Amino acid sequence: MYFCNNYNFSEMTNRPLILVTNDDGITAPGLRTLIKIMNSIGDVVVVAPNSPQSAMGHAITINDTIYCKKEKIDDGPQNEYSTSGTPADCVKLAIHELLDRKPDLCVSGVNHGSNSSVNVVYSGTMSAAIEAGMEGIPAIGFSLLDYNWEADFSQIESFIKTITNQVLTQGLKKGIILNVNFPKRLENDIKGVRVCRQANANWIEKFDKRQTPLGKDYYWLTGEFNNLDKGEDTDEWALENGYISVVPVHYDLTAHYYIKELNEWSLNG
Amino acid sequence: MYFCNNYNFSEMTNRPLILVTNDDGITAPGLRTLIKIMNSIGDVVVVAPNSPQSAMGHAITINDTIYCKKEKIDDGPQNEYSTSGTPADCVKLAIHELLDRKPDLCVSGVNHGSNSSVNVVYSGTMSAAIEAGMEGIPAIGFSLLDYNWEADFSQIESFIKTITNQVLTQGLKKGIILNVNFPKRLENDIKGVRVCRQANANWIEKFDKRQTPLGKDYYWLTGEFNNLDKGEDTDEWALENGYISVVPVHYDLTAHYYIKELNEWSLNG
Repeated sequence: MYFCNNYNFSEMTNRPLILVTNDDGITAPGLRTLIKIMNSIGDVVVVAPNSPQSAMGHAITINDTIYCKKEKIDDGPQNEYSTSGTPADCVKLAIHELLDRKPDLCVSGVNHGSNSSVNVVYSGTMSAAIEAGMEGIPAIGFSLLDYNWEADFSQIESFIKTITNQVLTQGLKKGIILNVNFPKRLENDIKGVRVCRQANANWIEKFDKRQTPLGKDYYWLTGEFNNLDKGEDTDEWALENGYISVVPVHYDLTAHYYIKELNEWSLNG
Repeated sequence: MYFCNNYNFSEMTNRPLILVTNDDGITAPGLRTLIKIMNSIGDVVVVAPNSPQSAMGHAITINDTIYCKKEKIDDGPQNEYSTSGTPADCVKLAIHELLDRKPDLCVSGVNHGSNSSVNVVYSGTMSAAIEAGMEGIPAIGFSLLDYNWEADFSQIESFIKTITNQVLTQGLKKGIILNVNFPKRLENDIKGVRVCRQANANWIEKFDKRQTPLGKDYYWLTGEFNNLDKGEDTDEWALENGYISVVPVHYDLTAHYYIKELNEWSLNG
């Protein structure tokens, strides 16, 4: 069976309903860690891509079909679905099709690799969390600065639990999403949490030009992260100095401070 | 030949070097219109997807190869390349591989359909422009509120020219990208330009569930735009009332106003 009936956890328990997703795919160790932690906090439904979707940005699937499959990957109490869609698709499908009510929280990750600074713009992990935020759901994206598939997520479990419980207790302002990045350190060496702004940075890209066996040119995108912003209030500073960075993110891209200047231009010819 | 030599237009002429891209693909009428207009302003290089990439958000290709092909689509003086990548890939490839120097301007579009309000988050057109902005290049995304492939772009040509010339004359603050949307109206019925903020809205999604000929369930994503924001300073208000909306956009997603509140939480347990 590909689809099971919708759930209404609010009628079953008094625990929060937590939607868990990611961009590395449903079998990623970072996601499995997050599911385990969330099972200790609430009733968990997982809707995650059936294959890796890193750097998908906020892509959604409008010119193709989306498949969805009920999964049973481990012995945990969570309900799980994999989809052929993007991370943002997963959140839309969960909220508008699979669940009977809005989740109380959406968590995305734990991403294998950084989503600090401008990486938030490219991040599938954060796009899923932001999509939930756009639906009015408190949302957090978690990322560990370790691209390794065998990264040691056990070092950050207690921090994830604390931050999640704070969001459930305090409540996030509507439209705010937390972008949480963890340094690659042992638990005892992590200095604590710092609330930050996104550092200004860019990528200095290099295209690795190769040839197919048939002689056709192609490229691989490779790049080097270039931090232009040494501010001690930035996520990059926090992470370099052993702190967990928490950046409150929103999806209003308007540069409000520039409206006045633009109004002085002769845009009407 | 798939690749030609790099260009250095600055040595050839004193005209601005303009990078043109989009997300509807290199043959889209909206792009062809934009190329024609830009040819009257500067030296044009086109690097655009070889197939439609709508709603790609800020996706980039890191787990796959990118192909690039020199194109000759019409009789214009522009140099053109199509790529297998996303809109953001096109900009990265242009700047870091195909061109010898940074363009003086990047324009993206004209998109077939709206990129106002929260649609900026999903938009491939705007992600290309934002990518250019991240590279320090003045950038503009243009969109017409008409999804039709045969939309009448001639009605907005003079406005595009005026706005582009203003950007080249005034110079955009580094990191600012203009999101320009045009109402679907005859030129004489367009009331002029309004500088706006992004309206707060969301999509009420509906998943259309179908079956393959072999009986497997699948979904199509469909949705209805839901404007939650009646402010007269918003892009939605401007467009509904016959104005061209110009929203200055940046890629700092930090909700700066929320940092103080977060600092009062017990995030360290």
